[in-house]
Amino acid sequence: MNPLLNPKSVAILGASDNPDKIGGRPIRFMREFGFAGTIYPVNPGRDMVQGLKSYPSLADLPEAPEAVIVAVAGDAVEPAVAECARIGVKLAVIMASGFGETGPEGKATEARMRATAHAAGMRLIGPNSQGVANFGSGAILSFSTMFVETPPMDGPVASISQSGGMSVVPYGLLRDKGIGLRYVNATGNDCDISAAEMVSMVLDDPEIRLILLYIENLADPEAMAQAAIKARNRGVPIVALKPGESETGKRAAESHTGAIATSHRVVEAFFRKYGIWRARGTRDLVHAAEMYLHGWQPSGENLAVISNSGAVCVLASDAAEREGLKVPALTTETEAKLTAILPAFASPRNPVDITAALLSNSGLFGEALPVAGSDPNVDMFLVGLPVTGQGYDYPRFARDTGAFLKASGKPTAVANIQPHVRAVFRAEGVPAFDSEDDAVAAMAQFAHHHRLMREAAPAPFDRTMRPAGGKREVRDEFASLSLLDAAGIATPRRVLCGTAEEAIALLADVPAGIVLKACSGAIPHKSDHGLVRVGLRDADAVRAAWAGIRAALERIGHPEAGMLAAEMIPARHEMIVGGHHDPHFGPVVVIGDGGIAVEAMPDNQLLLPPFSDAEVHRALDRLRIAPLFRGFRGQGALDADAVARAAQGVARLLREDPAVASVEVNPLMVAERGAWAVDALVEVVAEEEVGLTA
Amino acid sequence: MNPLLNPKSVAILGASDNPDKIGGRPIRFMREFGFAGTIYPVNPGRDMVQGLKSYPSLADLPEAPEAVIVAVAGDAVEPAVAECARIGVKLAVIMASGFGETGPEGKATEARMRATAHAAGMRLIGPNSQGVANFGSGAILSFSTMFVETPPMDGPVASISQSGGMSVVPYGLLRDKGIGLRYVNATGNDCDISAAEMVSMVLDDPEIRLILLYIENLADPEAMAQAAIKARNRGVPIVALKPGESETGKRAAESHTGAIATSHRVVEAFFRKYGIWRARGTRDLVHAAEMYLHGWQPSGENLAVISNSGAVCVLASDAAEREGLKVPALTTETEAKLTAILPAFASPRNPVDITAALLSNSGLFGEALPVAGSDPNVDMFLVGLPVTGQGYDYPRFARDTGAFLKASGKPTAVANIQPHVRAVFRAEGVPAFDSEDDAVAAMAQFAHHHRLMREAAPAPFDRTMRPAGGKREVRDEFASLSLLDAAGIATPRRVLCGTAEEAIALLADVPAGIVLKACSGAIPHKSDHGLVRVGLRDADAVRAAWAGIRAALERIGHPEAGMLAAEMIPARHEMIVGGHHDPHFGPVVVIGDGGIAVEAMPDNQLLLPPFSDAEVHRALDRLRIAPLFRGFRGQGALDADAVARAAQGVARLLREDPAVASVEVNPLMVAERGAWAVDALVEVVAEEEVGLTA
Repeated sequence: MNPLLNPKSVAILGASDNPDKIGGRPIRFMREFGFAGTIYPVNPGRDMVQGLKSYPSLADLPEAPEAVIVAVAGDAVEPAVAECARIGVKLAVIMASGFGETGPEGKATEARMRATAHAAGMRLIGPNSQGVANFGSGAILSFSTMFVETPPMDGPVASISQSGGMSVVPYGLLRDKGIGLRYVNATGNDCDISAAEMVSMVLDDPEIRLILLYIENLADPEAMAQAAIKARNRGVPIVALKPGESETGKRAAESHTGAIATSHRVVEAFFRKYGIWRARGTRDLVHAAEMYLHGWQPSGENLAVISNSGAVCVLASDAAEREGLKVPALTTETEAKLTAILPAFASPRNPVDITAALLSNSGLFGEALPVAGSDPNVDMFLVGLPVTGQGYDYPRFARDTGAFLKASGKPTAVANIQPHVRAVFRAEGVPAFDSEDDAVAAMAQFAHHHRLMREAAPAPFDRTMRPAGGKREVRDEFASLSLLDAAGIATPRRVLCGTAEEAIALLADVPAGIVLKACSGAIPHKSDHGLVRVGLRDADAVRAAWAGIRAALERIGHPEAGMLAAEMIPARHEMIVGGHHDPHFGPVVVIGDGGIAVEAMPDNQLLLPPFSDAEVHRALDRLRIAPLFRGFRGQGALDADAVARAAQGVARLLREDPAVASVEVNPLMVAERGAWAVDALVEVVAEEEVGLTA
Repeated sequence: MNPLLNPKSVAILGASDNPDKIGGRPIRFMREFGFAGTIYPVNPGRDMVQGLKSYPSLADLPEAPEAVIVAVAGDAVEPAVAECARIGVKLAVIMASGFGETGPEGKATEARMRATAHAAGMRLIGPNSQGVANFGSGAILSFSTMFVETPPMDGPVASISQSGGMSVVPYGLLRDKGIGLRYVNATGNDCDISAAEMVSMVLDDPEIRLILLYIENLADPEAMAQAAIKARNRGVPIVALKPGESETGKRAAESHTGAIATSHRVVEAFFRKYGIWRARGTRDLVHAAEMYLHGWQPSGENLAVISNSGAVCVLASDAAEREGLKVPALTTETEAKLTAILPAFASPRNPVDITAALLSNSGLFGEALPVAGSDPNVDMFLVGLPVTGQGYDYPRFARDTGAFLKASGKPTAVANIQPHVRAVFRAEGVPAFDSEDDAVAAMAQFAHHHRLMREAAPAPFDRTMRPAGGKREVRDEFASLSLLDAAGIATPRRVLCGTAEEAIALLADVPAGIVLKACSGAIPHKSDHGLVRVGLRDADAVRAAWAGIRAALERIGHPEAGMLAAEMIPARHEMIVGGHHDPHFGPVVVIGDGGIAVEAMPDNQLLLPPFSDAEVHRALDRLRIAPLFRGFRGQGALDADAVARAAQGVARLLREDPAVASVEVNPLMVAERGAWAVDALVEVVAEEEVGLTA
């Protein structure tokens, strides 16, 4: 085991005799929770602290402790870290606030402390950390009130969080479900060991089977990608809560941890790529834990429901549809068997309503359950017993459910509002939820997350060449389209023309007609200025359009602009495809619905290169306009493969051409066969700047 | 009080000595929960039941009981009901299943029982009812296990449900929050007293301040509308869970209660019109109860957050945006005051992060709270204390919060994961939630529901003339447009032409050009057959188009079709507006985005006439395309008033013309000024059938 998470000796700098103070709590916890190592209180003002010998300074200790809790504040912190480094400490946990989260000065202090530590081979957690806790060894280097409130239990879960509060909220919620945790580690400002590195560290513990992550500041996606790949290789799910989607939330996160504002859409794409499930709130973060910990591999997303309440049957069906699960029909064989078992007014169809008859016949349940659950159309199974208790043999229901679950290997859960009934089911190994909504949401997350983990084929994080900062310039349409051409994106036949006659010559090859446009990197929104004329089918029309555009260019003061004649592309739908470099996450590609409302009514998905064509197809499937790629009302399906080629082309440009800063293809004209970039803006780094950074 | 809900004497037909059987539970409950009236067990096989004298039959009772619990099953039920009617019982509660929910035969039995009852002035609850409970009087005519599991407490809430299980699930969840209920009434199959009538009945009890409703079968919207108007006049919120949105759920509801399948969209529109909040699941049904019961009138939807956890500040901000609340900036005066109170590394901006400094200074909270909460920009206030306990003076925090709430009158709540801490806050009158997500969701529901109740101006349910069943015919476009004209909807200038020259004559008046279309009620999807030619600007073009359409008509075998020439309408966006008669809810108007994908990618809203223009504007605001009505990227806003006029016109047609069965305007061309129906199909009842029903 990593000694950083499992120190044999711990000193507390600023040790308090009061077990409820920051410098007192860790001592109390380590003694109460069975820490077998040595505890060294350090406090110059006391001989004894909480019954233990106290030392005036670190230098007075009989040995260099493996870990030191720095529970002093303000200006005392930096010298304390230096002293730890000097005497050979391996890990210092800094609890005080008032560093990087307050501004540049605090960040500079953090950088100095990190340098001091690294020079001595020491690592830091914090500052602004509530501390780290290992309930396997009892090394509780934390002052959390939560461990006073709810006694710990060792278990297969790690809660890792930059926030102290959000490190222990999952602890509280899981302990209420009877689930134990091994690690509750708050990394605070991540000045040295980041939350991402902490994920990698706990993954070295073979008993960890689920990681819950709360992160406001994803400053090092490379480390997080490494951790996620390690988790995936070990089959350990990571569920992450990364808030700050709202403007106010983002601002609050910035002032809270000095978080770097990354578009939550990019973070979402990153999590998806690496198989990390994104929770939307504290409930999502923990609610599927029981499902994950069972070690099931769901075979699909088809849910059967059995209940003594018809209402629960209806509610669970609605919830399943809302959460993207199916409630399939059972086989006729299963329905026939159920009909034979159930009373006449019960329903043998999925969802299976065994009715209030259960109150008079407790055996019904055990008979019906394995029949419905074993149906070959069923991947997961939900037992809805909204209210039970006296008069019902629910311990028997719990045993029957547990037996089914063990025999079938099918993910199975119960929904019931009574804590004592849920406890009886849990004792039989059945995940238990307080409502059918929660149960279905948890089962859906579990199934969808497993699919995500299977589908994800995460490459190591790609530190692709980034364009330099500094001067940018926009290539004109002709040059932009040529760059796209070279990247394998289909473009229309076109000519940069000096005279109308050259445009007319193109017309001979493209009888469907041509479009004539002004061509200049200096004029965006060409249509707004009357600089685009479409549907030109004869020489007169071309000459008239030429004259019109030329006049418009004079009017707006761009007589120097070129003229581009291009084949008309009569495709069915306008999309956009584009990309840019995120300063932290590197290349980001966007695909989405096109038209005038791309900003006002956005419908797009982000992808982080490199990505597979299958990832593009799944991204298209998440768009509102997804039905266009399936076809409807007699219309053929649009060509998703062609869109994928275009997206791959944009990715190639961003990754392989060090000059390319951003690409916007709008519209990408998509047909039932093919997709063409009919207009594009490529932004490049001014020539003299290329290649300065890699 | 209504004697039906408050009987002075109760007989139990099929009384059981076993207090956990259906015929035993009510006796047990009435004795345990202080029923002051008379209990008459009826069981021919026993002299005593649960220590009470038992009677062989209803006829042997010393008086006619006000209420009878019919706890017999199958064929014994109907004679029992007849006997109740004969001896002058006022209310019979039928618990047995196997009636209307099983098919026509069961429905016929229900109808006979209802007729028998009504003839004698008796009312029925059920069948298939778990019973009704009045915890004010102890008249518990119910066999629910829930009342064994969780002891009742009288309170201001009524839970009304067709399902037995879903009548007591809210009971269980609210009792866990320390909230009492007066009524828990399961109406089962609603063969006589429906859930809607039950809502009206409990509203006669002045102590009822919140109604929770679970309903699968909304067969009588008129009664529900009456109940909702009564509730609104009394200021009593109704929160309703009406499942069956999914196909499977709808099917399950049908087999469960014989529910009539109404589009959940229509139900949603109905609830909105009458100020009923639609819950999506059991959690939504109950989670805002504490907010409602406080009796607050929220002044707006601006939320301030204060927490000792920066993470909760971020999470609550995200949740607020998700739930449609705002987290406004505080005034500079408030921020200055907070800066003076809080430590340097805390944030005085909303959300207000008072940091872990709270652990060392319990007074911080009481100082900061009233400052932040009293800010004039703040309508509601959330206190986030995710984890507290030993080391924190949380009883003081609770007192401070309670004092603020009383002094300010502002809706205020706390979020904390610890049940014992929440209990302390509740004791101070502070609504308490287990997470910031739940708290924000509940506060948002509370605020949005109050807005809905203010905005709703529900007229009594409109039993408008309905078109007869039987033969329908589709009017051709010209006739349809004329009907729209008459209803005040703008339409293009047009002529029904016998010759191309008549169309060319129209051209003289509309230089922007005309469109020529075949005109026949027998040919839908004209465009698919080449029967529409647009943009005709000169005589030659019109003649060519005429010939082309005529040829196409010959080809598809409709040479009889007429020809319509109409002014081209160069509007900016295609919408749809239409309407039909729902068999239970009457006229329904739809407005939405137009184009080819109205079915594949629907974006529409339903309205139940009569409605105000303001309701149309709010409906437009719920559309995905709502930004078009606000304008963006230099584009002016589309004319929402013109869309409202069109919607009102459709409503008028449906309500005032007994021949009109349905209307579809597609597209309604909407511009920055005006909206025109450029194509329409009106379906009418064949002449000889009109006026047969009203």
